[in-house]
Amino acid sequence: MNIILLSGGSGKRLWPLSNDTRSKQFLKLLKDDQGNLESMVQRVYRQLREAQIEANIVVATAASQVDAIRCQLGDKVAIVEEPERRDTFPAIALSCAYFALEQKRPEDEVVVVLPVDPYADLEYFHTLKDMERAAEAGVADLILMGIKPSYPSAKYGYILPEIEPGSMCEEETGIYRVKRFIEKPSETVAEQLISYGAAWNGGVFAFRLGYLMETVRHALPEDMSNELSYSKIYENYHSLPKNSFDYEVVEKAASIAMLPYSGTWKDLGTWNTLSEELAESYIGMVTVGEEIRDTIIVNELSIPIIALGLSNMIVAASPDGILVSDKGKSSYLKPYADTVYERPMYEERSWGDYKVLKYQKTRSGERTMTKLLTLKAGQAISYRSHQKRDEVWIVTDGYGQLVVDNVMKTVRRGDVVYIRRGQKHALRAYEEQDLSCIEVQLGRELEENDIELHPWVWACEELYSERLA
Amino acid sequence: MNIILLSGGSGKRLWPLSNDTRSKQFLKLLKDDQGNLESMVQRVYRQLREAQIEANIVVATAASQVDAIRCQLGDKVAIVEEPERRDTFPAIALSCAYFALEQKRPEDEVVVVLPVDPYADLEYFHTLKDMERAAEAGVADLILMGIKPSYPSAKYGYILPEIEPGSMCEEETGIYRVKRFIEKPSETVAEQLISYGAAWNGGVFAFRLGYLMETVRHALPEDMSNELSYSKIYENYHSLPKNSFDYEVVEKAASIAMLPYSGTWKDLGTWNTLSEELAESYIGMVTVGEEIRDTIIVNELSIPIIALGLSNMIVAASPDGILVSDKGKSSYLKPYADTVYERPMYEERSWGDYKVLKYQKTRSGERTMTKLLTLKAGQAISYRSHQKRDEVWIVTDGYGQLVVDNVMKTVRRGDVVYIRRGQKHALRAYEEQDLSCIEVQLGRELEENDIELHPWVWACEELYSERLA
Repeated sequence: MNIILLSGGSGKRLWPLSNDTRSKQFLKLLKDDQGNLESMVQRVYRQLREAQIEANIVVATAASQVDAIRCQLGDKVAIVEEPERRDTFPAIALSCAYFALEQKRPEDEVVVVLPVDPYADLEYFHTLKDMERAAEAGVADLILMGIKPSYPSAKYGYILPEIEPGSMCEEETGIYRVKRFIEKPSETVAEQLISYGAAWNGGVFAFRLGYLMETVRHALPEDMSNELSYSKIYENYHSLPKNSFDYEVVEKAASIAMLPYSGTWKDLGTWNTLSEELAESYIGMVTVGEEIRDTIIVNELSIPIIALGLSNMIVAASPDGILVSDKGKSSYLKPYADTVYERPMYEERSWGDYKVLKYQKTRSGERTMTKLLTLKAGQAISYRSHQKRDEVWIVTDGYGQLVVDNVMKTVRRGDVVYIRRGQKHALRAYEEQDLSCIEVQLGRELEENDIELHPWVWACEELYSERLA
Repeated sequence: MNIILLSGGSGKRLWPLSNDTRSKQFLKLLKDDQGNLESMVQRVYRQLREAQIEANIVVATAASQVDAIRCQLGDKVAIVEEPERRDTFPAIALSCAYFALEQKRPEDEVVVVLPVDPYADLEYFHTLKDMERAAEAGVADLILMGIKPSYPSAKYGYILPEIEPGSMCEEETGIYRVKRFIEKPSETVAEQLISYGAAWNGGVFAFRLGYLMETVRHALPEDMSNELSYSKIYENYHSLPKNSFDYEVVEKAASIAMLPYSGTWKDLGTWNTLSEELAESYIGMVTVGEEIRDTIIVNELSIPIIALGLSNMIVAASPDGILVSDKGKSSYLKPYADTVYERPMYEERSWGDYKVLKYQKTRSGERTMTKLLTLKAGQAISYRSHQKRDEVWIVTDGYGQLVVDNVMKTVRRGDVVYIRRGQKHALRAYEEQDLSCIEVQLGRELEENDIELHPWVWACEELYSERLA
């Protein structure tokens, strides 16, 4: 089975924990079997292994999320990086092109598309295998997972199956032909639909690779569809229709079947729904007292929160800000979170993460940003220079290799490095432990895009092991 | 008039804004006539000037508060520093000794004792003048202010006056003789007392300087009372009875009179009472929405707070922590605040203030503390050395004079200084503007008391003006 994990857009519905670079799927708020905190994307990746699905997996995502995915899933996961954000059809098309044209997978293999964020149990992943079998057997061009609705929601799309006697695709597996789709009906209509056997469309699709490649060929300009290659599609990504998979593929399909799933399924997209599945009611430095009820508190800061006499509330604190909200009212958060946005104060990168500790501005307009950088053991900040700022690094933990203007040296706790504007610099943590340092940026303009990358080949492992000895 | 402003103990009833070094009287939460934020101590000091009281003022306080008082009231205010915390009688006794023996004030002058924290209006200060007149006229040994109770509180002490006809000291000024004192009665008893004309004891006393000096002489060991001097009393502070002024002086006085005051008077000692007088409902970076009612939010952090759907709540955030509490439940805060205490993350010093930005500990037990220091223009960090830590200073704003091991130089934004353990160092901001720097402390133990002070005479103003030119 080939699996496309769709790691979707960013947003602020879970502000201050989620922001424009840190999407909800990367928040470590759930708990694995060992009691460790894990994120939605880590959970789905773990569950795929636990369900013993032998799959060729790619994660389709935007450039802004690549670092976070590498940080959470490791270096080995294959990533299809969307050249720009263009909805789900182009993302799935590019991923299929990667399977067919880059990995040279046979076109009769099955592809399953899966969002990374739903909260489901292991049965959900076993259902994927049934979908694969149905697609292989040619039951229909497209097999959709139909999620048994737990209430008449007006937020989801509904799949209405043919329920007349004899209309089932396969009696024994319970696969239905699909009659039609209804997008976000009113609650009253939703109630009726459910009584007719309709299910929620959870965005899980199975199809043969060749079926989708045919659609891709049709979607591209005529002069391009000959001698297709992955890089050709990548470069012409902007010419693929900016449309959802549902509109571009599902609505045009000749035959569609639905495989029902009735286990746990939750969309943890808002504080209210997330609060039900949180690993613990209180995460981080939290002290509660005096009649606290039905309240969740997530504290990512290194200062304590004391909560007294709260009822039915959400408190969340991160380097980006603090939310204090009635649970019901938390769904109105987005417009407020959009107004306070300045810049992310915490980001995961491929090499580790950073936290902004302080941002200062002098009367004359000079700016200073103080950050804590943590490089994971063996990871490196790539060779770079800045035009508009000096940087001071004070190593506070671990040791590593520093390069400034092609001169390499070992640095360790207590070392201070002054990098002037224009100087090329890179830093790598040795394999043994993480390296942390305080970074003080000084300049009139401090922008993340003031960066020029330079090639640098790190000394081989032997060389720097030697230096350490 | 001589005035003793009693700047009382520290506490955590207003945590996270108040802590063991930052008492409630220093919190800038009130508003002056120009709309600027001011603290309780700044308010009382301003009101004394506005009431045109020509007074010789000293502030009696503990060593831990001297820096905060200098920072908020300026260099010129006289401070009597208590050698140790020993209740109100020794503090008032030492202050009177300062008037009589250090300033050589005549013993028939009147002294008025005033706490710094009640919230009152200007009439309160005019009442002080009436108390002075009554003490000068010899109406009684002690004149107390009787505050008209606004409700039968069980938290305060009550003064019961003689109300029989003809028992008034002075008919025209409304001064009563005091019959007796009742400390924290039940609410039922308080109600009765109020019906008999009792008033709250607000801790405001007037007496002749000589009267108290007599008490001081009696309170000291016999061999000491001859040839008294201020320094002698200061050095033997520990031998003064550790008792309140009420128990040591008021209860033993031969004649006591009460001067009523019926204007505004509030004890802003808890979040609940403070919330009524707060300059604004929302102070700092606060965004509110979605049906917020009867809620106060004070944000001293540099990240935003978003509040949705709150009712009757208190939210307060400072570098020490975050409080989210129901208003009524906020009076139960203290025991919880006591458990979370680690170290103050923000302190005002005579030279300015510091904020702790980050505290880190490595696996091997090495510690790092990153602070933002702000030196007020013209102020200096005194010459010092540390045995157990290195310090790195990165100047981020302004310029000043740095001394390391007796070598002086000018530093400015962008300069990095590495001070090794044992090295003597001092820093002074030039007169023109504040100086700020990021300080990174590195050591196995980072303690505020790891400090040795050394003498240093700063170069005269002319010299360093020259260096600047």
